[in-house]
Amino acid sequence: MADIEKVEYKPISVRDLLIEVKDISELMIDLAYSAALFDNEELAEEVMDLEKQVKTLTYLINMNAMLAARDAEDAEALVGVPMVASSAEKISDAAADIATIVLKDIRIHPIIRDVFRKVEEQLARIKIESISFLISKRIDELKLAAEIGVNILAIRRGKRWILDPEDEEIIQEEDILIVRGTQKGIEELGKAAKGKLKEL
Amino acid sequence: MADIEKVEYKPISVRDLLIEVKDISELMIDLAYSAALFDNEELAEEVMDLEKQVKTLTYLINMNAMLAARDAEDAEALVGVPMVASSAEKISDAAADIATIVLKDIRIHPIIRDVFRKVEEQLARIKIESISFLISKRIDELKLAAEIGVNILAIRRGKRWILDPEDEEIIQEEDILIVRGTQKGIEELGKAAKGKLKEL
Repeated sequence: MADIEKVEYKPISVRDLLIEVKDISELMIDLAYSAALFDNEELAEEVMDLEKQVKTLTYLINMNAMLAARDAEDAEALVGVPMVASSAEKISDAAADIATIVLKDIRIHPIIRDVFRKVEEQLARIKIESISFLISKRIDELKLAAEIGVNILAIRRGKRWILDPEDEEIIQEEDILIVRGTQKGIEELGKAAKGKLKEL
Repeated sequence: MADIEKVEYKPISVRDLLIEVKDISELMIDLAYSAALFDNEELAEEVMDLEKQVKTLTYLINMNAMLAARDAEDAEALVGVPMVASSAEKISDAAADIATIVLKDIRIHPIIRDVFRKVEEQLARIKIESISFLISKRIDELKLAAEIGVNILAIRRGKRWILDPEDEEIIQEEDILIVRGTQKGIEELGKAAKGKLKEL
């Protein structure tokens, strides 16, 4: 817990916080297994970052639940909330354990590589470099799904995570995109992010 | 562990088993939080059933990894696999903890109900009764997404789970559908499953 910044109280509905922690948990599992299956350390690093987000969210959930309880009846009505928050942390820790296996170079992948691997969708992390034409574009404008078969699952912007970004979201320099798509599509988007492609 | 049936060895690729356990984990988290947010015991029960599936899968993963290791080099190459399996069980246990909170009637939902709730998609469990017109229909034939805004995430058929079923999958009597959709769409599908609607 030593690596956690002090979390300041913000009034947010517990429900919205629980939905956010659920979405992050699902993304973490997706990323952690993909990191393990494809021996991808970049994805594993994002899992570790999301683990910190979950810790912050569980603090906020607990604080908001406590402040919502003004009498015994409220407390009874809210007692399940910190229990869910605690389970959320366990899920996040277990996903981080999988990521740690990948980051410590413990091997999982050889047998996996050996089996027949059909071309299928993968996850990847793509960083938007300063010379990329993607900068200042709206997500829907790029038609990534139609053009190259890639979907943006999340954007990390500095310390902030945007899960399942809206169509109107505008891509910024230094954004880290977490994407799902075919290998070919991911390669193209990677080139566009590095400024090596001027259109998709 | 007393409630686990003996798991017989089946030769399945560890990679396929890991992908299945990942998909089940994501579904469990989705179901567990939905159970908590909407105080839905049916969804919580399905989480408990999936927990058993994960236990069986982790046995199979460990057995297949052991049998794949014939020398020290193999063993080194495979050592991460049981570690991932163990994390998979932790994730599954934590999702089951959330489901248990719901099943024990520990309250989480009052504050959640109090906040402004926009109409949004929910998860639900729908059982196909013997008089339903849905029986013997292919999933794609029903055009559920287009007609009523509902998607089938999984089908439980007796003890077997079919995750993310194919378009060609045929709905059978007694199938348990796990669906995501608008409240209205879910209600309609529920009526169709009970034989109270003859078309969608």
